[in-house]
Amino acid sequence: MIIRDEEFIRGKSPMTKEEIRTVSISKLNIQNNYRLLDIGAGTGSVSVQMSKIAYLGQVIAVEMDEEALGLIEKNKKKFSADNLQIIKGEAIDVEKQIQGEFDGIFIGGSGGNLEEIISIYGKRLKPGKVMVLNFITIDNVYKAINILENLKYSTELIQLSISRSKGKSHMLIALNPIFIITARREIHE
Amino acid sequence: MIIRDEEFIRGKSPMTKEEIRTVSISKLNIQNNYRLLDIGAGTGSVSVQMSKIAYLGQVIAVEMDEEALGLIEKNKKKFSADNLQIIKGEAIDVEKQIQGEFDGIFIGGSGGNLEEIISIYGKRLKPGKVMVLNFITIDNVYKAINILENLKYSTELIQLSISRSKGKSHMLIALNPIFIITARREIHE
Amino acid sequence: MIIRDEEFIRGKSPMTKEEIRTVSISKLNIQNNYRLLDIGAGTGSVSVQMSKIAYLGQVIAVEMDEEALGLIEKNKKKFSADNLQIIKGEAIDVEKQIQGEFDGIFIGGSGGNLEEIISIYGKRLKPGKVMVLNFITIDNVYKAINILENLKYSTELIQLSISRSKGKSHMLIALNPIFIITARREIHE
Amino acid sequence: MIIRDEEFIRGKSPMTKEEIRTVSISKLNIQNNYRLLDIGAGTGSVSVQMSKIAYLGQVIAVEMDEEALGLIEKNKKKFSADNLQIIKGEAIDVEKQIQGEFDGIFIGGSGGNLEEIISIYGKRLKPGKVMVLNFITIDNVYKAINILENLKYSTELIQLSISRSKGKSHMLIALNPIFIITARREIHE
Repeated sequence: MIIRDEEFIRGKSPMTKEEIRTVSISKLNIQNNYRLLDIGAGTGSVSVQMSKIAYLGQVIAVEMDEEALGLIEKNKKKFSADNLQIIKGEAIDVEKQIQGEFDGIFIGGSGGNLEEIISIYGKRLKPGKVMVLNFITIDNVYKAINILENLKYSTELIQLSISRSKGKSHMLIALNPIFIITARREIHE
Repeated sequence: MIIRDEEFIRGKSPMTKEEIRTVSISKLNIQNNYRLLDIGAGTGSVSVQMSKIAYLGQVIAVEMDEEALGLIEKNKKKFSADNLQIIKGEAIDVEKQIQGEFDGIFIGGSGGNLEEIISIYGKRLKPGKVMVLNFITIDNVYKAINILENLKYSTELIQLSISRSKGKSHMLIALNPIFIITARREIHE
Repeated sequence: MIIRDEEFIRGKSPMTKEEIRTVSISKLNIQNNYRLLDIGAGTGSVSVQMSKIAYLGQVIAVEMDEEALGLIEKNKKKFSADNLQIIKGEAIDVEKQIQGEFDGIFIGGSGGNLEEIISIYGKRLKPGKVMVLNFITIDNVYKAINILENLKYSTELIQLSISRSKGKSHMLIALNPIFIITARREIHE
Repeated sequence: MIIRDEEFIRGKSPMTKEEIRTVSISKLNIQNNYRLLDIGAGTGSVSVQMSKIAYLGQVIAVEMDEEALGLIEKNKKKFSADNLQIIKGEAIDVEKQIQGEFDGIFIGGSGGNLEEIISIYGKRLKPGKVMVLNFITIDNVYKAINILENLKYSTELIQLSISRSKGKSHMLIALNPIFIITARREIHE
């Protein structure tokens, strides 16, 4: 079940657009029993979509913003995402509340402590499994890709630009380009 | 299971790129028991990927090129796509060999008889279900979107541009932009 | 003298963006004594910029919208574009008021009568000289390029997408993609 | 006089594409008596084009590659760019051979010593004047923009993506996206 943008309950803050969400999630290559982590979950669109694919597994969404947390809660209910657990707090602070390892990690939010988040949560990613990151800024994509390569992840970086047609004459309206990093943790480190 | 580009057995002709394939297939919103049609199947990458998602359903791939047919056959075997049926011939000519209705249609090839293909096969698409089309030319996307709108489909058109990073300094290499049309057949016509 | 977007007096309606204006005008390869025509001149940004390059020549701006005409007048004054003549009316209607031939024609507005405009004003373009057209819709670019090719112009078509960095972390903000057609009238027809 | 890509004598190495050259040079806002510097001049396409605009001024092209130097020499001759001076060597090494201040600097090549080049040659740029830089890699654009901002330049960064139509049906062929930085040296530092 692919959920469209307009089906999610949304706030004022920007939400990962459908095609970006689709490509990002496909990079995680999710099996139905995967245990997944979404850091900086925002409206929860990625978390909820992942929870429907990993319906025998679990998704943990970490978010610190009060308004966003309300939206994730609402979207969880709307889509009956019972296997979605929401944790409130800054990613670094709540790490000890989060148990076990993950089969995939999605990082959509880009706070200031990117290096720490990648380094700490990367240790929770099972070897051979994948971390997917979305960025809208040159600075964050530069930092993230170089951090990941230094940590010996094998990485893929794409920039995705989408224009959407509008009106009878099919005017092209551009969405902002998004960088998507796919980083696989090495099996032998 | 998401199949990567490099896993498919490929010929000289261009193949739908991973992210385009992912977005296109997600627009079809495939359920596991769907019956799907791929017109102009090329290497079969979309057909095979769809057959893994609709594992309780069926995928029919139509292709006229001999070399392409060989590749589809090989990819079918490699990925054990037992629910994939391959039909040789030009789309218009083989229509009578193809029985029943479809829950989704993908048109990736863009032969000269676009209007006929859309019109004839559109009648095989269940009302409420979706046809997805990929184009690389201005002329074909213009023709297809206007044909579909005249036939009262509700349409969405996006242009997707991907650049892929290469090398240590992360040089951006552009792939050619692709137009993706998603056209839903109206329930009451 | 290159005029920046923010230097022009602007209204509510969209203005050709600096880089699009620069590329479009460069395609006209303007000499300082050229006689130029701008059909659908909008705020007059292209007209004024052309008039500074063709300072020994002349630019004629055609525009029908009252508000736009006021803006062109203001920009003409601001930049002392004395060789810029403004004609009020729909392009087709005012054709008889416009004398002589042109060394270059720019069409930025895309009214409904594209075929007529191209056909009528094309006859005013000196053989070997160039018409440049900007479009934001699939339909208009398709129509224009095919009309021009049928009229035996030699054509070049590009799509130009620009993102502009914003903020300390260099977030990329996309502008809508623009199609630019450059059409050279054949010397021997 | 706008020189088209195909008019330049070219080697195997990539050349700044016409539209990128046009936009980059327009950002320099060249007056006819400007004194300009082109660091990493490659085939000399930017140098030669600048020398035709600053026909009462001077252009100095710095290049270290033997083959590229031969191409610059040939293009200088072909376009009678008499006000173009070619200096052989690595940018940092030849600095003392280069006298005086500049009204504009273009950096198209991206060697390893970006920080040094920007810092050293930036001192030769007249206050209020502009340095334009082209990059194809995430790493270099990140480094350059941050170096320039630290040096208190006021900066603009755009990413420019061009697709060129090919064939009767107008297939869009993508060129690699280019980052263009325009950095103005502050008048009071």
